[in-house]
Amino acid sequence: MEPHELIGELRAESGPSMVLLVLDGLADIPTAAAGYRTPLEAAATPNLDKIAPESAQGRLVPVAPGITPGSGPGHLGLFGYDPLKTIVGRGVIEALGVDLELAPSDLAARANYATLDESGVIIDRRAGRIPTEQNVELCERLKSIGPIEGVSITIRPGRSHRFVVVWRGADIAGPLTDSDPGKEGYPIREVQPVGDDPRNIKAARVVNTFWKAALEQLGDCRPANGVLLRGISQRPEITPFPERFGVRAAAIASYPMYRGLAHLVGMKKIPTGETPEDLFKTYADIKGDYDFAFIHVKAPDMAGEDGDFDAKVAAFEAVDRALPALLAESPAVLAITGDHATPVSYKSHGWQPVPVLVKAARAGCDGLERFTERTALHGSLGTIPSRDLMAILLASAGRLAKYGA
Amino acid sequence: MEPHELIGELRAESGPSMVLLVLDGLADIPTAAAGYRTPLEAAATPNLDKIAPESAQGRLVPVAPGITPGSGPGHLGLFGYDPLKTIVGRGVIEALGVDLELAPSDLAARANYATLDESGVIIDRRAGRIPTEQNVELCERLKSIGPIEGVSITIRPGRSHRFVVVWRGADIAGPLTDSDPGKEGYPIREVQPVGDDPRNIKAARVVNTFWKAALEQLGDCRPANGVLLRGISQRPEITPFPERFGVRAAAIASYPMYRGLAHLVGMKKIPTGETPEDLFKTYADIKGDYDFAFIHVKAPDMAGEDGDFDAKVAAFEAVDRALPALLAESPAVLAITGDHATPVSYKSHGWQPVPVLVKAARAGCDGLERFTERTALHGSLGTIPSRDLMAILLASAGRLAKYGA
Repeated sequence: MEPHELIGELRAESGPSMVLLVLDGLADIPTAAAGYRTPLEAAATPNLDKIAPESAQGRLVPVAPGITPGSGPGHLGLFGYDPLKTIVGRGVIEALGVDLELAPSDLAARANYATLDESGVIIDRRAGRIPTEQNVELCERLKSIGPIEGVSITIRPGRSHRFVVVWRGADIAGPLTDSDPGKEGYPIREVQPVGDDPRNIKAARVVNTFWKAALEQLGDCRPANGVLLRGISQRPEITPFPERFGVRAAAIASYPMYRGLAHLVGMKKIPTGETPEDLFKTYADIKGDYDFAFIHVKAPDMAGEDGDFDAKVAAFEAVDRALPALLAESPAVLAITGDHATPVSYKSHGWQPVPVLVKAARAGCDGLERFTERTALHGSLGTIPSRDLMAILLASAGRLAKYGA
Repeated sequence: MEPHELIGELRAESGPSMVLLVLDGLADIPTAAAGYRTPLEAAATPNLDKIAPESAQGRLVPVAPGITPGSGPGHLGLFGYDPLKTIVGRGVIEALGVDLELAPSDLAARANYATLDESGVIIDRRAGRIPTEQNVELCERLKSIGPIEGVSITIRPGRSHRFVVVWRGADIAGPLTDSDPGKEGYPIREVQPVGDDPRNIKAARVVNTFWKAALEQLGDCRPANGVLLRGISQRPEITPFPERFGVRAAAIASYPMYRGLAHLVGMKKIPTGETPEDLFKTYADIKGDYDFAFIHVKAPDMAGEDGDFDAKVAAFEAVDRALPALLAESPAVLAITGDHATPVSYKSHGWQPVPVLVKAARAGCDGLERFTERTALHGSLGTIPSRDLMAILLASAGRLAKYGA
């Protein structure tokens, strides 16, 4: 038996309330340039400091040592799924990011406008990064492509040259290979099924018919006279989060991708605002109807991606200022962590373990003075895979029975 | 190859002596109510303090993060078996707890007296928790139920409404489903085989014949006119501990369940007393005949289950006072740990990692001043699964060869 199968057997059907507060990109690394402090260490966090001694701390490994997770694997781990087994395709992630809801059999692709020469060879895979307004106009053209073999098509523009395509039909299945050869100097590739399932074969036929129809629509639109498709996939088949952990789960997140990821695992999306105050106010409003809330704060990750140390400090300080409102709602278990590191010095995601704090009567008091990358190293939870956090939250809520007599 | 398969290849046939001293329920969590100390931190342990600096420390995870182990999984992990793969059924645990020895094909069940109404519907699954004396009398009645299809039956009363049934025959096999529907308002269920093995099918038939005969015997004994059977199982098939690790292994434990668990894996049960002095004296008496001794101290777990902080402190202090007698016998390797946490604030088992101390010339000296939950976090052994401890003990005894050239 796998440890994670145990949880299904041991979990209660209901119990005390739990909050998973995700500060996106939380973890960082000290650098000489920043005086050997991380943004979390540099931030003034009086409210976090108050709860730190009476909480347990530890560190979460999102995927595996040295592996930098995208937002999908990062969140799936926190939601208790093994990100090496539960794969969310790139097309699905993009669809969630533009707020498209996906039915189980829907096929989604990440699409680029591209430039083709007269012979159909790709000479710019990003169509000179056309402005978003032009992208929106082109997507309107593509919407005229009607159903193909009974499969309907949804087009949604993203930023610059990027857009999303979703194919919906009862008898199609992914994944398919990319039509994007990955470099200039080659023609667009026919997509291929990966198996011999007739639904997979039909899907490939439909998608190939689609992109050829798209080229006809775009004939005179150079530099955006081509379309490249990648990550053509369906949502993963999973046991929904509420069923798996015996919780009524709400997702309080303002960014589409995170709302979408939470919805993908079966959480209920709650409309909310963007600031920590907004998010915590929403929690106060809905907490009577749910016993698990995932709250997502985007700002630390954006600051990290921008390489802006001060902005990352400010993002943590904003959360800290709002924290008393969340604490006033007295969730029985409060976990604060991140989905991955976004070191300021990287300007991108990092592979480092992510500090986690768990405040709950049953979690114990580590007596640590703050909550930072370095204090977390000394916490009683140790360094564990992100996907094990849910078991600790359920146990801290007294919602997991004993294993064996 | 699994790491645990390596040990069979690398282990020596004999070597220096090892002692595994298990303080049941050792680990705890600091709480505000107890001044942010654990019982182990609060206890005066001058003798432990003396050996702490010259020992290695670390923490053991009995099953997986967040998973609270019963005594079975807790001990199997310490004995080097994966408690997610080596499953000891509830019936087997109960049989061990009343000092019954089980042959490999014996089937054991945990049984309850229950109250049935006139139509056979269960109206109290615990028969009003009848006194143990009445239980003993009723069990005498049931002993009149003779062999069924050549399968002999052993009945052993437990406390209150609980008893144990063992079926012995060459051609029966478990596991079977429960006859206990798990709630009142339903009739007793026929037990079912879980596969189509003829021995499994015969076992189900015999067990169903048994409980119907038992109802006839108990006809006029209301409120104890019913019998419910749960966890009907055989002992797991395992490589015996002495063979697996190349040791002559003795179990020095006064409580039947722990003696039984050790016997189940093939250790020799040694008669002993209940106090640490008794246990350590027994070790001194038998150490010439064995090179591995499992010594089990029950008191810390009982204090934890009672929610009695001072009693848990006193249990550790009693072990500490007796410790010089054990040290005087100079085992080459001495490990001190627990099978699981029993936090005083839980009054039940907990999921937390358990501190471990290994004193051996080859284990290294961590220089830590005490042996507690918090010092163990800083030990050189790190936080590892309980089932890895045996490899460390063998290595510390110089009894494991190098892997590969």
